[in-house]
Amino acid sequence: MERYNPEALLPPWLSKFSAGDEGALLSDEERMRFAVGLARQNVLHGTGGPFGAAVFDRSTGRPVAVGVNRVVGSNCSHAHAEMVALAIAEQQLSSYTLNRPGFARYELVTSSEPCAMCFGAIIWSGVSRLVCGACTADAEDAGFDEGAKPEQWTQELEKRGIEVLTGLCRNEAVSVLQLYVNRGGKLYNGQPRQ
Amino acid sequence: MERYNPEALLPPWLSKFSAGDEGALLSDEERMRFAVGLARQNVLHGTGGPFGAAVFDRSTGRPVAVGVNRVVGSNCSHAHAEMVALAIAEQQLSSYTLNRPGFARYELVTSSEPCAMCFGAIIWSGVSRLVCGACTADAEDAGFDEGAKPEQWTQELEKRGIEVLTGLCRNEAVSVLQLYVNRGGKLYNGQPRQ
Repeated sequence: MERYNPEALLPPWLSKFSAGDEGALLSDEERMRFAVGLARQNVLHGTGGPFGAAVFDRSTGRPVAVGVNRVVGSNCSHAHAEMVALAIAEQQLSSYTLNRPGFARYELVTSSEPCAMCFGAIIWSGVSRLVCGACTADAEDAGFDEGAKPEQWTQELEKRGIEVLTGLCRNEAVSVLQLYVNRGGKLYNGQPRQ
Repeated sequence: MERYNPEALLPPWLSKFSAGDEGALLSDEERMRFAVGLARQNVLHGTGGPFGAAVFDRSTGRPVAVGVNRVVGSNCSHAHAEMVALAIAEQQLSSYTLNRPGFARYELVTSSEPCAMCFGAIIWSGVSRLVCGACTADAEDAGFDEGAKPEQWTQELEKRGIEVLTGLCRNEAVSVLQLYVNRGGKLYNGQPRQ
C-alpha cells in the first residue's frame, strides 16, 4: 500500500529539509525567527501564503519538522503551515500523537496565531506548547479570514495542558504578512464572505 | 516531484473507491446512510474510529470522495473522516476550493458533527452545505473529546454561506459510536485531559 506522504506538501526549496541540517535553536526567539524565515522564504519563492511553522523537540531545541502554507500550490485547503509541520512530525515519529509518555515533548512554533482549523489540530497533535508570532488581528489586517475560534482560545488550549506564548517577534512576523500583500499575493480563502 | 496523496489515508477495503462505483444518492437520508455505512465498515474492519464522511456533488447526488477516521492507522492526528474526504475531493478536482464559480456545488455529509478542527476545515474547503448525523454530545458520550468549537458554530458556518443540517438519521449514526465502544475501540485523542 502507498505510504501517506505529507512531506510532498513542502515546496521544492524546502523539500530537502531534514532535522540534522539545523543546529539546536535554544531560545524562543531563535525558534520564532526560524519559523518567520520559512514564511518569508515562502513568499519570496512565490510558493504560498506568508506563513511558516516548525515542530521542535523542546529539550534539544532541534526542529523535527517544518511547514509552510501550500494551499494553492498543493490544491489542499488545509495545507496551512501548522498542519503540514504537524503531519510531517507525526510521520517522522511514526506516532499519531506527539505526546507519548516517556518520549521527548514537542512544541509548535508558528509565524502567526492559528486559524480556527489549526487551533483544533493543535489539540489533537499532542504538542505541549504553542508559540506564535503575528496575532490573529494582524493576519486579518492583511486580508486573511482566520475563521471563528472560541473567544478564549488560548485558555482552551491551556485547559488541555498546552502552554501558549503569543506575540513573540511580532513585528518581524507582521513584516512578512506585509511583504505578501505588497507583492500582490493571492488571498485564497475557500469561502468568499457572503 | 512526488504528488501529495491523501487517498493513501484510506484503508485497504476503501482504497479502490471511485465515484463511478456509486449511483446517484438523491435524498439527504440516502447520503447520510452512505456516510454512516462507511463509519460502520471502518469499525467492523478495525481500521479506525467510528466516523465516516463523503463529499457529494449536490446536483448529481454522486459522491466524489469518501473518508473514514484513520488517526491511529495512518499516524496522523488530523486524519478525521471529514479531512480525508475533503482533501481527496480537492485533489480529484485539482482545486484548493470546492467553491469555484461556474462549477458544481458540493456538500459534506458526515456521520457525526465536526470536531473543532474539522469545523474550521469545512470553512476553508468551499463546501456550500454540511449535513451531520450524530451530535457533538453523542460523540462526547462515547468518550471522544470534540475540542472547543465556538458556541454558535452552526451560525458561524451559516454566516459564511454554508447551510447546515444536523441530527439526520441520528439513531443510526449513534449506533455506530456504540458499536465502537462495545468492541473496546481505542480513544485516540492526542492530548489527555489534565
